[in-house]
Amino acid sequence: MPRYRLTIEYDGGPFVGFQRQTNGPSIQAALERAIEMFCGEAVTVTGAGRTDAGVHAEGQVVHFDLTADKSPREVQGALNHHLKPDPVAVLDAAVAAPEFHARFDAVGRAYRYRIVNRRPPLTFDHGLAWQVPVPLDADAMHDAAQTLVGRHDFTTFRSVHCQAQSPLKTLDRLDVMRHGHEITIVAEARSFLHHQVRSMVGTLKLVGEGKWTPGDVTAALEARDRQRLGLNAPPDGLYLTRVVYP
Amino acid sequence: MPRYRLTIEYDGGPFVGFQRQTNGPSIQAALERAIEMFCGEAVTVTGAGRTDAGVHAEGQVVHFDLTADKSPREVQGALNHHLKPDPVAVLDAAVAAPEFHARFDAVGRAYRYRIVNRRPPLTFDHGLAWQVPVPLDADAMHDAAQTLVGRHDFTTFRSVHCQAQSPLKTLDRLDVMRHGHEITIVAEARSFLHHQVRSMVGTLKLVGEGKWTPGDVTAALEARDRQRLGLNAPPDGLYLTRVVYP
Repeated sequence: MPRYRLTIEYDGGPFVGFQRQTNGPSIQAALERAIEMFCGEAVTVTGAGRTDAGVHAEGQVVHFDLTADKSPREVQGALNHHLKPDPVAVLDAAVAAPEFHARFDAVGRAYRYRIVNRRPPLTFDHGLAWQVPVPLDADAMHDAAQTLVGRHDFTTFRSVHCQAQSPLKTLDRLDVMRHGHEITIVAEARSFLHHQVRSMVGTLKLVGEGKWTPGDVTAALEARDRQRLGLNAPPDGLYLTRVVYP
Repeated sequence: MPRYRLTIEYDGGPFVGFQRQTNGPSIQAALERAIEMFCGEAVTVTGAGRTDAGVHAEGQVVHFDLTADKSPREVQGALNHHLKPDPVAVLDAAVAAPEFHARFDAVGRAYRYRIVNRRPPLTFDHGLAWQVPVPLDADAMHDAAQTLVGRHDFTTFRSVHCQAQSPLKTLDRLDVMRHGHEITIVAEARSFLHHQVRSMVGTLKLVGEGKWTPGDVTAALEARDRQRLGLNAPPDGLYLTRVVYP
């Protein structure tokens, strides 16, 4: 009964999120359906991160078990075939240790958030980035972001639906970089609270347009109060880029 | 009666091409409709290049006349508003000289062609690049491309529907570059024949996978025979990136 580990990429736009739900298509259900079409086995796919509706992935990791012994190359090819036309692709497939767990074994997660800072509406990147028409100061955003790095109670930056036991998290990296019209925000941590990256990005956007000072960000963090959050950024710009294992 | 010049961007996927046609939506018709919604004037929009169905633009240039005297900023904002939800955006608007002609005044055109060289199907770039699963040697493609640079009779690389009077064109640049899975081909000339870039890219792909030698490319060029063309690349990967004026 081999366990398989896949690295997958998806455009979250048409999905209600990674996790199977009754109200619409999910990435999990798309994968499970493709596996059943491939080998007739009804399995449960477990992902490293349960990305929300509209959130994308370039390096999500999942695992599942098969009764049949298939080569990773065959699994990858067959799933990519059966996943069409859904915008989900298997980038890599491997046989994992029998006890490997995509979610519980992960020791790091990296996200990037894409802002396109321009007035014209998006054409190629519609649904794939947050279009912000007002000019943003990326350097000011980066400086303010550093006040969030480290171990903090992130209650302000946490969805009211977050199921984590503790609001304490250690944020290892929060960098803001501009290349032309494109602003990229990279966030790295062992794990994140629900909506944490989008909440931090929304707050940094307020700093970028000059509405908030870095002191306002610190005050919001220290308030430990969701009502003090300035803004939650839309899912469009968020990508789960990498999951790290020991 | 001011003449306006716009720089526009579009995803060619949903369109039958730049030019108005009876068999489906065109970028020209989308622009003309948006102008009429903005100011009630029924105008003809002229583009620098008549891109085919499925071909994209990052820097197409068009011109048109209005009776009303509107500021370029107002024109840009209003057209971007009325163009929604079509994937067409006005990147820049300016008042042009009364005799400015987007097509006849152009002295240079630049295209880029995107190949994504990987086995998994495309997710974010579906319709926006040519996915080639077999490994391509970009250096060999670049070397072969240099045999096409210069003044030649490009009959082999020209659609049978091409309306240009002469098949003689001077190709100023044809560079092939690889960055990871992405292969970019940049083509520059005063003007191109119909399907010329796609025909050159299709031929270079044959070189990249080792099916053709640079000598085969030269032989196909010298044959001046459309039947000798190896392969016409799909429109998905082609972008009109820049139009140059004196």
